[in-house]
Amino acid sequence: MPRNQQILLDNRPQGEATASNFKLVATDTPALQDGQVLVRHHYLSLDPYMRGRMNESKSYAASQPLGEVMIGGTVGEVVESRHPKYAPGDKVAGMGGWQEYSVVDAGQPGVLRKVDTTHVPLSHYLGAVGMPGVTAWYGLVKIIAPKAGETVVVSAATGAVGSAFAALAKARGCRVVGIAGGPDKCRYATGELGFDACIDYREHGDVKAMSGALKQACPDGIDGYFENVGGYILDAVLLRANAFARIALCGMIAGYDGQPLPLANPQLLLVNRIKLEGFIVSEHPEVWPEALKELGTLVGTGKLRPRESIAQGIAAAPEAFLGLLKGKNFGKQLVKLI
Amino acid sequence: MPRNQQILLDNRPQGEATASNFKLVATDTPALQDGQVLVRHHYLSLDPYMRGRMNESKSYAASQPLGEVMIGGTVGEVVESRHPKYAPGDKVAGMGGWQEYSVVDAGQPGVLRKVDTTHVPLSHYLGAVGMPGVTAWYGLVKIIAPKAGETVVVSAATGAVGSAFAALAKARGCRVVGIAGGPDKCRYATGELGFDACIDYREHGDVKAMSGALKQACPDGIDGYFENVGGYILDAVLLRANAFARIALCGMIAGYDGQPLPLANPQLLLVNRIKLEGFIVSEHPEVWPEALKELGTLVGTGKLRPRESIAQGIAAAPEAFLGLLKGKNFGKQLVKLI
Repeated sequence: MPRNQQILLDNRPQGEATASNFKLVATDTPALQDGQVLVRHHYLSLDPYMRGRMNESKSYAASQPLGEVMIGGTVGEVVESRHPKYAPGDKVAGMGGWQEYSVVDAGQPGVLRKVDTTHVPLSHYLGAVGMPGVTAWYGLVKIIAPKAGETVVVSAATGAVGSAFAALAKARGCRVVGIAGGPDKCRYATGELGFDACIDYREHGDVKAMSGALKQACPDGIDGYFENVGGYILDAVLLRANAFARIALCGMIAGYDGQPLPLANPQLLLVNRIKLEGFIVSEHPEVWPEALKELGTLVGTGKLRPRESIAQGIAAAPEAFLGLLKGKNFGKQLVKLI
Repeated sequence: MPRNQQILLDNRPQGEATASNFKLVATDTPALQDGQVLVRHHYLSLDPYMRGRMNESKSYAASQPLGEVMIGGTVGEVVESRHPKYAPGDKVAGMGGWQEYSVVDAGQPGVLRKVDTTHVPLSHYLGAVGMPGVTAWYGLVKIIAPKAGETVVVSAATGAVGSAFAALAKARGCRVVGIAGGPDKCRYATGELGFDACIDYREHGDVKAMSGALKQACPDGIDGYFENVGGYILDAVLLRANAFARIALCGMIAGYDGQPLPLANPQLLLVNRIKLEGFIVSEHPEVWPEALKELGTLVGTGKLRPRESIAQGIAAAPEAFLGLLKGKNFGKQLVKLI
């Protein structure tokens, strides 16, 4: 049985998360029982939601238990199988966690799915053609539901969710405006991801400056907003929102360390008859097939070419994750494990 | 032509509205032209939304122009008609404004509707079987959309909207909890309006106290909230909201004088995957027939017996309106004009 390096959550963050919250251990993978498969992970996905799981406090999902392998999406290859539907060599996506191997009860619905790497690189099943892509799809299609010609805005624009959002929104004839950190990301957003405009939040660090930048970038106002960050950016968006705007509330990364993030002027939600809806994509399994089909086609035809930031080796996962929380990644953050 | 006393908006409030913002004048009603009818108003409706119209600032509806008759719903009787569909003696509801008579171009769609006073008193067409009732209906049925057994909460519980909300929610098998100001209103809410519980906000003047009271009154949490006031009450409701709760945002009377009303913790909208939607009932004319039918039946069968606060004479309208904004009314605030 191969040796398996794993990263556990050792203790919970006090404020900002640090590398000392994690612990690297190694164990032998157990022998398979009937119905199980052994997957060797090629890539581990790092995503902002994981920060929420590290807290004890009530969050939208169960806390990550202490002393257990950190939760996380993985893609890899079946190396041993005692389940009739899987054979060694099959490429699969699942929730293997922060470790090199996982043993999966393959008969449980939804824990593992085979993926086709003919037109879509394996790693993209953790990004554009995986959970982040479906997240963008759900917020855009099911909550914002834009008409052609409408203006939609997304924060964290060059990340895995934001880049998929741009391609999906352009396919629907929208004007798409991104908000990202730094001139490089903004150039990438407009030059490669198809954004019509991108606002550098580092250059617009308060609600007044951001509101002014949004006015310029969205001359017809904002009809839809996909929220990943929270704080003053949401305040600024509300100042530029049109009547009947829709806001998909996906994340509030600015508040993950426990900072208060008051919304300055909720009256604007009433004044403009805005619909705001929080969601978690894993609670909407019914949309995944349709969403993944569209996303796979966008990637397969080159209309969505997401960038990846790749850290090497399981031991690099904590630092890569902490960098992601600070926006140091450029595109989808992965850890390569082989 | 009869003499017509009118109340104009003379100047805009600086902060709190005062009687000096209004001006009483008298004119002769003009001679009718073809297609017009002259309506003598029996009752004028006073509603919180009028305070928003008095401001210059961007609101969800056009500002009330200075020097013109204040906008407002009215019920009355046709006293002269040059329109084939109306005859003297017809009872009608419309938007006649703060005056004793109005001349109406009766052919315009939606400006006037005949009402049947066999089972429903004329004044109720300004309350339970009028705009406030339909407002409650829309927020409950179209936004909150409760299942039987769910818990729904409404602020300003004993007003025209709140009392209709209670009857409509009870008819759908909900637990209905009100928030109102003072022990008399709370007793009335539970004793006569059918609320299962009512919280006196004067006894629970901050978010911690209100949240504690909501916990007691809503042992299974809150599934739906109909918001009329804003401020700390909304913060407290969010602390007790269940996953997938829905919030119908109808009014934020606490902010009408320009006070900031920040929402302390918008992350709760995400954590609990809440849907929040602002609305104005006049923008949804398609629901009025269905809503008015249900509301008329509730009143006609005695299941909804709303209380009214009635001021006498057009000159009393400003003080009655200012009292409404402070919660001095008890039930639907009207001005009797005959």
